[in-house]
Amino acid sequence: MISFESDYIAGAHPRILERLMETNLEPLSGYGSDRYCESAREKIRAACGCAEAQVTFLSGGTQTNALVISAMLQHYQGVVAAETGHINAHEAGAIENTGHKVLTVPHAQGKIAPDTLNGFLERFYADDNHDHMVFPGMVYISHPTEYGTLYTLEDLEALSSICKRYHIPLFLDGARLGYGLMSLHTDVTLQDIARLCDVFYIGGTKVGALCGEAVVFPRGNAPAHLLTTVKLHGALLAKGRLLGVQFDTLFTDGLYFEISRHAIEMAEQLKAVLREKGCHFYLESPTNQQFVVLEDRRLEELKQQVALSFWEKPDADHTVVRLATSWSTTPEDIQKLREIL
Amino acid sequence: MISFESDYIAGAHPRILERLMETNLEPLSGYGSDRYCESAREKIRAACGCAEAQVTFLSGGTQTNALVISAMLQHYQGVVAAETGHINAHEAGAIENTGHKVLTVPHAQGKIAPDTLNGFLERFYADDNHDHMVFPGMVYISHPTEYGTLYTLEDLEALSSICKRYHIPLFLDGARLGYGLMSLHTDVTLQDIARLCDVFYIGGTKVGALCGEAVVFPRGNAPAHLLTTVKLHGALLAKGRLLGVQFDTLFTDGLYFEISRHAIEMAEQLKAVLREKGCHFYLESPTNQQFVVLEDRRLEELKQQVALSFWEKPDADHTVVRLATSWSTTPEDIQKLREIL
Amino acid sequence: MISFESDYIAGAHPRILERLMETNLEPLSGYGSDRYCESAREKIRAACGCAEAQVTFLSGGTQTNALVISAMLQHYQGVVAAETGHINAHEAGAIENTGHKVLTVPHAQGKIAPDTLNGFLERFYADDNHDHMVFPGMVYISHPTEYGTLYTLEDLEALSSICKRYHIPLFLDGARLGYGLMSLHTDVTLQDIARLCDVFYIGGTKVGALCGEAVVFPRGNAPAHLLTTVKLHGALLAKGRLLGVQFDTLFTDGLYFEISRHAIEMAEQLKAVLREKGCHFYLESPTNQQFVVLEDRRLEELKQQVALSFWEKPDADHTVVRLATSWSTTPEDIQKLREIL
Amino acid sequence: MISFESDYIAGAHPRILERLMETNLEPLSGYGSDRYCESAREKIRAACGCAEAQVTFLSGGTQTNALVISAMLQHYQGVVAAETGHINAHEAGAIENTGHKVLTVPHAQGKIAPDTLNGFLERFYADDNHDHMVFPGMVYISHPTEYGTLYTLEDLEALSSICKRYHIPLFLDGARLGYGLMSLHTDVTLQDIARLCDVFYIGGTKVGALCGEAVVFPRGNAPAHLLTTVKLHGALLAKGRLLGVQFDTLFTDGLYFEISRHAIEMAEQLKAVLREKGCHFYLESPTNQQFVVLEDRRLEELKQQVALSFWEKPDADHTVVRLATSWSTTPEDIQKLREIL
Repeated sequence: MISFESDYIAGAHPRILERLMETNLEPLSGYGSDRYCESAREKIRAACGCAEAQVTFLSGGTQTNALVISAMLQHYQGVVAAETGHINAHEAGAIENTGHKVLTVPHAQGKIAPDTLNGFLERFYADDNHDHMVFPGMVYISHPTEYGTLYTLEDLEALSSICKRYHIPLFLDGARLGYGLMSLHTDVTLQDIARLCDVFYIGGTKVGALCGEAVVFPRGNAPAHLLTTVKLHGALLAKGRLLGVQFDTLFTDGLYFEISRHAIEMAEQLKAVLREKGCHFYLESPTNQQFVVLEDRRLEELKQQVALSFWEKPDADHTVVRLATSWSTTPEDIQKLREIL
Repeated sequence: MISFESDYIAGAHPRILERLMETNLEPLSGYGSDRYCESAREKIRAACGCAEAQVTFLSGGTQTNALVISAMLQHYQGVVAAETGHINAHEAGAIENTGHKVLTVPHAQGKIAPDTLNGFLERFYADDNHDHMVFPGMVYISHPTEYGTLYTLEDLEALSSICKRYHIPLFLDGARLGYGLMSLHTDVTLQDIARLCDVFYIGGTKVGALCGEAVVFPRGNAPAHLLTTVKLHGALLAKGRLLGVQFDTLFTDGLYFEISRHAIEMAEQLKAVLREKGCHFYLESPTNQQFVVLEDRRLEELKQQVALSFWEKPDADHTVVRLATSWSTTPEDIQKLREIL
Repeated sequence: MISFESDYIAGAHPRILERLMETNLEPLSGYGSDRYCESAREKIRAACGCAEAQVTFLSGGTQTNALVISAMLQHYQGVVAAETGHINAHEAGAIENTGHKVLTVPHAQGKIAPDTLNGFLERFYADDNHDHMVFPGMVYISHPTEYGTLYTLEDLEALSSICKRYHIPLFLDGARLGYGLMSLHTDVTLQDIARLCDVFYIGGTKVGALCGEAVVFPRGNAPAHLLTTVKLHGALLAKGRLLGVQFDTLFTDGLYFEISRHAIEMAEQLKAVLREKGCHFYLESPTNQQFVVLEDRRLEELKQQVALSFWEKPDADHTVVRLATSWSTTPEDIQKLREIL
Repeated sequence: MISFESDYIAGAHPRILERLMETNLEPLSGYGSDRYCESAREKIRAACGCAEAQVTFLSGGTQTNALVISAMLQHYQGVVAAETGHINAHEAGAIENTGHKVLTVPHAQGKIAPDTLNGFLERFYADDNHDHMVFPGMVYISHPTEYGTLYTLEDLEALSSICKRYHIPLFLDGARLGYGLMSLHTDVTLQDIARLCDVFYIGGTKVGALCGEAVVFPRGNAPAHLLTTVKLHGALLAKGRLLGVQFDTLFTDGLYFEISRHAIEMAEQLKAVLREKGCHFYLESPTNQQFVVLEDRRLEELKQQVALSFWEKPDADHTVVRLATSWSTTPEDIQKLREIL
């Protein structure tokens, strides 16, 4: 049995576990005030090219989305997202649970087209009754998206400029950011993201850590008393070192990028195998998640030997499935899949 | 420099890190559905003597308190707690953030006396205007308390019986439960707690884990769709194995109790040293946290060589400090403290 | 200048003001416990044909929607509504402010088709990942809808039966209920609504009262401690008599229906005039709100003499406007409009 | 039977009902945009001596408290109140329902002494752990208080200056403000309040209106988009005229002050009668609410002929009761009470 079920099927990259071992006995103060957290922050600032960035470590994506969004919105505001956005579809109402509406716009392969955003905002302010409506107070995008797709630099420039015009922050969910940055088909760098977004996060959980997301406010623009906000969301780990050591390791000698590049290489090999075997791609994904449409009969057989994820049913006889690569995917896994197919 | 600053200054007990290493490459499904989580649940059920207990793993204490309390209260209800209770004083309003009031009652060394609880509930229902007030919908206690003190079995029986009479659940915060169970001065067992409480948790973060609390609904009485509730609180880890492997290890061969017993032994040695050196105890604590009153001048000196926690200022010239032991405290640490004092 | 701007441009029906005058000096207890509230409840029970109905008076529609929905949902649930539903589009996020998502489905002239609802619920439970999604916990419809349209009895029977199958309540927003009941084109009675819905309200504000909505739980199925819930939403008026006297008057000698019938008669005359003058109807509305598409140039002229409401812009040169009738609309108003057109 | 049960036992002052009648047929736009609301705002600005004051009309006290407090607090902040404050004790958790803690301080006859406030704030910022605590973000006082007592001008100056020093707003709940302003024992004027508070409200419900509170932000300092906030709290009346006409009437020819002065005169007569009859006053109240301690036996007799309010039980044989006067109290009522006593 081989598994392409997700990018969180294995534990942490070995170098992370080693560092947790090595630092285990060192007495450290709690709640993110230890020297590994500080060192990780410093390295992330350097990687982003933002000396004044504020970096906060949280445990997971939904937690991060709910916390960042609610900390930055006024209570009469909602967050604009693609209708397929993770916060709208798969976070069990975590955003609404903080009192805010997700204002949905149509998506283009998981992305918000700049024109779509612009039109939405224009129509909102043109509406005579907009005082009776939820004000758009932030734009949420993910990069890669739910469908593994990527914004171009031009897209991001355009979205950022629209947000600036309307004085609302642009928030980029980077739960799988590494795979976006290391894609063979991107012109977007981490520095671009830091320059164009008002807040974003560098996902650890799905890029080789046991858990952890690094939230970056690139221009010292974090909301006041963010530590207290983290605490009141139940998101402050007593042993902050767990996150600090992991991110310090990920941003030492480029491990974060190395892990991501490896997964991308595996994904390219996976794509080649799937293509060779005549699989129909649901869409063209340039990152570590690949979506193929399978006949249900073929899927049933395949599931005996390969773990993969159900995505959706386009019709009665077919299923869209997702295959994901990660730091732990090996060329042997791909080879075995080839043989099975 | 030696540290008694808290029981979360070191990383995890070495056996936990070993198991994380050993299981690291195994592909496992996410969100708490893996076999380590299942095994840990089974072992916790056995330790509690509750075959039908439901066990859910979360990351930290504040998260657990907010989630459990809000999941079990009706929206017109609040939770009764001692005014010194962690949820009232040191969780940055996490409970209120879920929409519920903390209804405070006076404490006795951190505990709620049964008579105090009874009187509070009696007065509430006797009040003609109670329809304009927050209904008491749950009782929150911690064991050990903020002051390291413990309920007796008789106390717990009485509190439980009052809660039953008023049809409200009794919730026990066991962030440091191990130290309570292994105290030399307790008659309360884990099975007693499982029998007398409606929900409680077994703290991992402060008892040798990197992070993690195991919430137990002992009689299959968990609220419906608790997984979704965990998700919407941002508390669902994708790599649920991180919690599963840790608790599976803690409940294998009694490691949880071994860790706790060690810390209690260290605390007893610590008490002896403090007593020998003429320190004045703020109160008599039978667990791993010791509170002493120091002259501020002496404290300033001590802080050069020993890390400890500020607790409160009883007057202008004195400070109450906390010294805590944990799995990582050694007899050498105690010996060094003795020399320093 | 004549006004068809809305059905709340005038004050209260004169009989209501008279009764407020007549009862003004009578000392009455507060918070809805007075004899006028009780009498109004009794008359509403009779009108609904539900001896055990529980009736609560609130001040306005958004308040009622947010209170009823949040009081009946579990925290992991959302409310299903048409994307054009008032709670989704024009209540400034009042539902989300209580922590719940509005789960939208496509509309058919403002209505939810039974097949649409059924399909939505089927797909939700068929989705493997529904534990990571917001559970549908209630269905919200309005009758008349935002577009003045009405459900048929068959529609309501079908929606009610789907809700029963999925064990979720059906909630009917009757902010303009009278106009639905007195429409010339309906087969739905108040008793039908009481029989088929789990909760609904009889709108007063837009049907001749100064303010006020009567929420009905037809089968004694109100959530526990609803008075406390009303209080904590800031919706409990000290002088509950203001609502009691109004509803007592509305349900004396059929005034509520008389007011509604009058507005419907005016609306039918209005339709005849608009049709005669060649106006294009945006849709066929059987109630007191009429929607016509006007050329922007014609609209600009018209607005000099007639107050009406902007609805939407279907294209660059046209506008959909709403004209509404109410208790205070007179045949002279219609005649004047005819002359102006 | 005569009634001193509360100051909301009767309907509205007759001049208010007359104006509602006179203006009833006038077509007016909704949601507080009509000319009566505007005129009332202008008159309130003049009465407060604040040309740039922003005035918003709401329906009741709990609604106003919850809305104002949640609109002005950051999510990591709570509101400081006396433990006897209405928001802490008798609003069913309305504040916590918006996500904020009520931070209680001891009271002195319902008031917060400036030293108490100062000490609380000093201790908060002196605490090393205050990042794990709820930040004090606002101070709430009521004038008159729950016990009918009043702040002196010196008190208000001191409280205001402390708030300024800590950069937090001072909010005055004036549900019964008129009775405070017209007391024979006050040196505080409406202009003083407007000068010293950051937000306050002028209560209508308990001072002669059917319902209504006028919230005043005296220096144009209302939170952005307050109308939307009012809407999302379910507090925006479609027929805003109901509030506008009432406050326009109350602030025409000093009716608000005339009503209040009358109630104070009646209260002074009431006090004289109670004193003459040997009643023991629970405390010295200079406003329209009087609190006396009665033997339970005497109370039982009295209740046959006089409606009054239960306040609290100081011991097993006595009860504190409240007697309140209002616009509708007559000298004959007082005379009858005298005879009964």
